[in-house]
Amino acid sequence: VPSTKPSKPPPIEHVNMNPMAATRNAAANKEEVLILTPLSKFYDEYWKNLNAFTYPHELIELGFIVPRGKEGNAVLAEVEEAVKKVQSGPKNKRFKKVHILRDDHDMPVGRDEKERHALSAQKARRGSMALSRNSLLFSTISPTTAWVFWLDGDIVETPATILEDMTGHDKPILTANCYQRYEGGVRPYDYNNWHESQTALNLAASMSEDDILVEGYRELPTYRSLFVYEYNEHGNKNTETELDGVGGTALLVKAEVHRDGAMFPSFPFYHLIETEGFAKMAKRLGYQAWGLPNYLVYHYNE
Amino acid sequence: VPSTKPSKPPPIEHVNMNPMAATRNAAANKEEVLILTPLSKFYDEYWKNLNAFTYPHELIELGFIVPRGKEGNAVLAEVEEAVKKVQSGPKNKRFKKVHILRDDHDMPVGRDEKERHALSAQKARRGSMALSRNSLLFSTISPTTAWVFWLDGDIVETPATILEDMTGHDKPILTANCYQRYEGGVRPYDYNNWHESQTALNLAASMSEDDILVEGYRELPTYRSLFVYEYNEHGNKNTETELDGVGGTALLVKAEVHRDGAMFPSFPFYHLIETEGFAKMAKRLGYQAWGLPNYLVYHYNE
Ligand SMILES: Nc1nc2c(ncn2[C@@H]2O[C@H](COP(=O)(O)OP(=O)(O)O)[C@@H](O)[C@H]2O)c(=O)[nH]1
Ligand SMILES: Nc1nc2c(ncn2[C@@H]2O[C@H](COP(=O)(O)OP(=O)(O)O)[C@@H](O)[C@H]2O)c(=O)[nH]1
Ligand SMILES: [Mn+2]
Ligand SMILES: [Mn+2]
Repeated sequence: VPSTKPSKPPPIEHVNMNPMAATRNAAANKEEVLILTPLSKFYDEYWKNLNAFTYPHELIELGFIVPRGKEGNAVLAEVEEAVKKVQSGPKNKRFKKVHILRDDHDMPVGRDEKERHALSAQKARRGSMALSRNSLLFSTISPTTAWVFWLDGDIVETPATILEDMTGHDKPILTANCYQRYEGGVRPYDYNNWHESQTALNLAASMSEDDILVEGYRELPTYRSLFVYEYNEHGNKNTETELDGVGGTALLVKAEVHRDGAMFPSFPFYHLIETEGFAKMAKRLGYQAWGLPNYLVYHYNE
Repeated sequence: VPSTKPSKPPPIEHVNMNPMAATRNAAANKEEVLILTPLSKFYDEYWKNLNAFTYPHELIELGFIVPRGKEGNAVLAEVEEAVKKVQSGPKNKRFKKVHILRDDHDMPVGRDEKERHALSAQKARRGSMALSRNSLLFSTISPTTAWVFWLDGDIVETPATILEDMTGHDKPILTANCYQRYEGGVRPYDYNNWHESQTALNLAASMSEDDILVEGYRELPTYRSLFVYEYNEHGNKNTETELDGVGGTALLVKAEVHRDGAMFPSFPFYHLIETEGFAKMAKRLGYQAWGLPNYLVYHYNE
């Protein structure tokens, strides 16, 4: 597996004064965006879509974290080749910097759709995803990062202006609505964006410390109101709605939210883990999560 | 205020493969140590002591976070001058890199010893300290960081071999015992290192969600067993003891603990905040905190 070691920095001091502010005029203010993607499968469509982003690439850093093992090695080779091509291509298409990391733990469950979506697998799987996200975040965020954009590697279609559009809402945490193209139409995909319900709160209150509540399972009815169903094809793309739980498919976060400490709990935090726990933790830090119900991004259809 | 902007990195990719492991043979294995210090006052004694560390300086990065405002500006000028001197001095004394950040929020309470130690001030003060620590940590930790050493800016005396000594214990989290020189003798200083008690757990269980338990206050008797009193001047310096709560005066943490997500909660986490909350969060992530009761470091005597 090829690897490029960072060159030794100069021995003189390196002073980073003020962390960069994140505003609604992100591109004009030259605000840096760090796009973070946990990557267990490399889709050409994801890469093409990402490279078509109109936000100035010189303000974008990319960060990937790839699983260990044989499959991970293959993904790594693919992403490295793709990165090399872009970074040695036309200047205006090059990204500021690309970080590639490996997981430091094995994934506890299979990559198969059925297997990884079983309710019984969620605590282990999403706990492990949380560790991957945290490692990636802690290793790549810098004082000059203004925004962190979490973009799953199987998001194969978004508006090219997604960074301008989403930063324009000036929210601490903001998610797009994740659908899937299906038989000529679309269907909901990401159920992790929701508004809290009293039923779920009561359920959580009755649980033992180590139990978790995950959304989107018949076996665990929460009666939470699901953001994914708020999509209205004739609605205003700029409609905003407050959320209590979020997913990570296309999630924009002001870097200060993470710098204040908001991370992805791999342990039950208010009986929530990973991205859903992140939204709750951010809330405890004083930050509200929002969603754009009519702003769609599309998940690969396996 | 002088500031040096980081030079623009090359547009080609920068690949950081595996996070660095932390082992008991840290220096021999060329493991990088990131020393992090929230700094509201600059003591020459702290700086001299730090510069005398025998651990190879080329493996050490320093990170400071300095308060905003006039007093902060003065501290900044002092630390910048000190850093410049060292980084342009003898090569073997230079550090690998130095990061200097500013708080992005104001400190809620005065710097006076009485004021900042009042029980009523703890939630605001230590919540704010937690935010400073998190910003500092998120902005400076990198994939090549093996260890993070939290060292308060008023720790004016430690063994020069403290990094070799403490990494040698190979613990995920390890604190020294913080005392103060006083009238020719020594006296206990840091009460944040402790073993949990049933009284404190009962107290916490009876509290409302937003209440916190802090250690070291007569008004809030917890009957926790305090690490600071376990010091035995004739005892073995290598004696280890498990801890449930830790302080941040001289605290060594394997970088993977932070990378997994362990941070300093500014909100009550199991009714604990800042460093004490960090120990609990690390525990939830599967990491045990330890202390060296007979290994002393000394706090400045105001
Ligand atoms: N580093 C890493 N990334 C993973 C792992 N498993 C999944 N991913 C990536 O994490 C994101 C979310 O995972 P995915 O399985 O698509 O979740 P789902 O769409 O909710 O079923 C995708 O970008 C995956 O490529 C893993 O074990 N390690
Ligand atoms: N950045 C920053 N550092 C601070 C602030 N207040 C204290 N510190 C530093 O944080 C560390 C712990 O604070 P200190 O007041 O000494 O805590 P105490 O010894 O427990 O009373 C010391 O290194 C201080 O210099 C602050 O508002 N901002
Ligand atoms: Mn997916
Ligand atoms: Mn102090």
